[in-house]
Amino acid sequence: MESFSCPICRRPYPADVRSLFCPICGDPLLSAYVPKSPSIHRRSPMGVSRYLDFLPLDEFDTSLSLGEGGTPLQVLNRLQAKFHTPPLFAKNEAMNPTGSFKDRGSVIAIHMAKALGFETVGTISTGNMAGSTAAYAAKAGLRSVIFVKDDTPREKILAAGIHGANVIKVRGNYAALFWKSFEIGRVLSFYFINSVDPYRIEGYKVTSYEIYEQLGGKAPEYLFVPVSSGGHLIGLMRGFLDLRRAGLISRLPRFVGVQARGCAPIARAFDRHKKTISPVTNPRTVAHAIANPQPPGGKVLLRMLAANRGAMAAVGETEILKAQRALAEYEGIFCDPASATVLAAYLKMTKQGLIPPGARSVLVITGSGLKTLGDVDLSKLRIAQADLSDLPQLMSAWK
Amino acid sequence: MESFSCPICRRPYPADVRSLFCPICGDPLLSAYVPKSPSIHRRSPMGVSRYLDFLPLDEFDTSLSLGEGGTPLQVLNRLQAKFHTPPLFAKNEAMNPTGSFKDRGSVIAIHMAKALGFETVGTISTGNMAGSTAAYAAKAGLRSVIFVKDDTPREKILAAGIHGANVIKVRGNYAALFWKSFEIGRVLSFYFINSVDPYRIEGYKVTSYEIYEQLGGKAPEYLFVPVSSGGHLIGLMRGFLDLRRAGLISRLPRFVGVQARGCAPIARAFDRHKKTISPVTNPRTVAHAIANPQPPGGKVLLRMLAANRGAMAAVGETEILKAQRALAEYEGIFCDPASATVLAAYLKMTKQGLIPPGARSVLVITGSGLKTLGDVDLSKLRIAQADLSDLPQLMSAWK
Repeated sequence: MESFSCPICRRPYPADVRSLFCPICGDPLLSAYVPKSPSIHRRSPMGVSRYLDFLPLDEFDTSLSLGEGGTPLQVLNRLQAKFHTPPLFAKNEAMNPTGSFKDRGSVIAIHMAKALGFETVGTISTGNMAGSTAAYAAKAGLRSVIFVKDDTPREKILAAGIHGANVIKVRGNYAALFWKSFEIGRVLSFYFINSVDPYRIEGYKVTSYEIYEQLGGKAPEYLFVPVSSGGHLIGLMRGFLDLRRAGLISRLPRFVGVQARGCAPIARAFDRHKKTISPVTNPRTVAHAIANPQPPGGKVLLRMLAANRGAMAAVGETEILKAQRALAEYEGIFCDPASATVLAAYLKMTKQGLIPPGARSVLVITGSGLKTLGDVDLSKLRIAQADLSDLPQLMSAWK
Repeated sequence: MESFSCPICRRPYPADVRSLFCPICGDPLLSAYVPKSPSIHRRSPMGVSRYLDFLPLDEFDTSLSLGEGGTPLQVLNRLQAKFHTPPLFAKNEAMNPTGSFKDRGSVIAIHMAKALGFETVGTISTGNMAGSTAAYAAKAGLRSVIFVKDDTPREKILAAGIHGANVIKVRGNYAALFWKSFEIGRVLSFYFINSVDPYRIEGYKVTSYEIYEQLGGKAPEYLFVPVSSGGHLIGLMRGFLDLRRAGLISRLPRFVGVQARGCAPIARAFDRHKKTISPVTNPRTVAHAIANPQPPGGKVLLRMLAANRGAMAAVGETEILKAQRALAEYEGIFCDPASATVLAAYLKMTKQGLIPPGARSVLVITGSGLKTLGDVDLSKLRIAQADLSDLPQLMSAWK
């Protein structure tokens, strides 16, 4: 079993999923695994098995897989033409098995849960992570426990509950629940695979390798990623760092983490050149999937961005909903509002002339719009009513 | 441009999307394209481009693609163990860009719409086909018109409306609307890409080629497919017929089309050895996506099944909902009730000893459960409530 290390103080720790945070710094531990002259297994399809050398896994067990990864890198030619932007692409992670990028992390963490002999896994989530963890636990034959907020709407519970998960609606402080879950896990030998789990983060590296190959063996100049806990972007950065260490690329993309202005603890700290995160007291945004008021990976992410010329951006509610519609109307991609933040941030930066001509940008789309139908503004859509007999006349006006 | 032919009387017709039904037989025309010594382009990823030789397309325009195809063929090892079945697989078409198999057909039909110079496309649908057609029209920069029933719920309209489609809720006879749409299309030069469109059907062939390759260059012994209009199964059969004609396989799978007993016009005709379909007057099933009371491809499908030792099956409501939960709880696949019919039918046939030991069956999963959340029975799920402070005690009982 590989070991962990603290990304802040660099202290090594044994790979023990019962203690996932540095007792000195308080920050999430990351895998200390460093791929040694890794090869891409070009006969395997995209997904984990093709990049096994890069991951702390001895082998990939297809009986634990739901077919995650290998998502398309779509050329956004119509948005590019409309807004006169440099080359633009979307990596559509909403096309993973449960409709979000979380599946990339779940499949690796579930491999570890099996290897370590756990019989129960869990997570805290009101959305994508709940459905993903429950689905992968089901495929592996593990019991799952999902803690959700007391007021979580019915639909969000269904997507986890359908997989046989034990869903518990918890009354009380939600931030305290994060730490309580690890405590419960230690006592009962349950593995809580939360947002900044080190193995989850390793799974996100695979997306970077795929982007590199889909661009013909090159890194993009810019990579825009929605940021909540920080775990996803940390994983994507680690992926490109691996590619550079392996000599496959010579320079990293510029990483741009994006938050909604209504809950932007990491973007705010970045702007103020702070090294730590102040919690947001009253998060308010339609981008629910990234409305994390106290992101556990924030400090680590700030440090990694500083070390690699990365940046953070924040966007407003109107921009987010406009960007969501633009992706659907021009590119046929129906994503959730959290995903749309990256287009909003990109368009702002191109308007300000911050993206050089010819520089290729990749927007990482993190979740499907089918999970957040309630956030769509019906009044912006073209919906009419007619009698069958009036239809020909109504339509003839459209010729 | 390739031509069409009537699958009943074999008469040839010019490839004209303004007349898609044989004026003599009344049945949907199919593409007359026959692949001549086709090759699989093994350097292309799965999806249309890999199988271009098999399709009536000169080239594949990636700017019209949302990354459809290349869906996983998942080994259902846990269901197999639980129910002591022969080898079982799921082809998960819910992992297409808009969450259903319809995307396979939309991408080909939209290629044709562009090639033929149409500026507006349309469809009639209350579900998967609406979202798919609207998304692909958006990507292609075409206007789209979606006719839905007057009482279609809000969420179903959203997934099409978000792509800028003109959604029209039509009061009046829904079956009459099907024919009216073609009439409107002829007058206004709109291309109505409905369920049994010949190019849509060509797109479904690609799924068969993928299954053949994913099984290591072999056809499965059985293929189970949910049946509504008949178009999907007709396309899948044509795909395997192509593979046999090309000498890649020597025998076809046994095709089993599955309907819900509450709306089973084709299964009923098959049982009674009829050659034509009697419409269902009062369709009642939770499998809404396949509740087509008067399937336009029914007669053609019956004939193809008879010619190729295929069969039809019908399953009840309780079986369908049980199968939906079993796929989610044992295999991590959350599909809609229509998709779950195939597992229900398969389990019934294995119980009856109709599937020989060692015979490999593939279940085609056609749509995502995220689109039909309202059909999940909450009472069957494990949902509890607790105070944060009581959580450790509650959980300790679970050890």
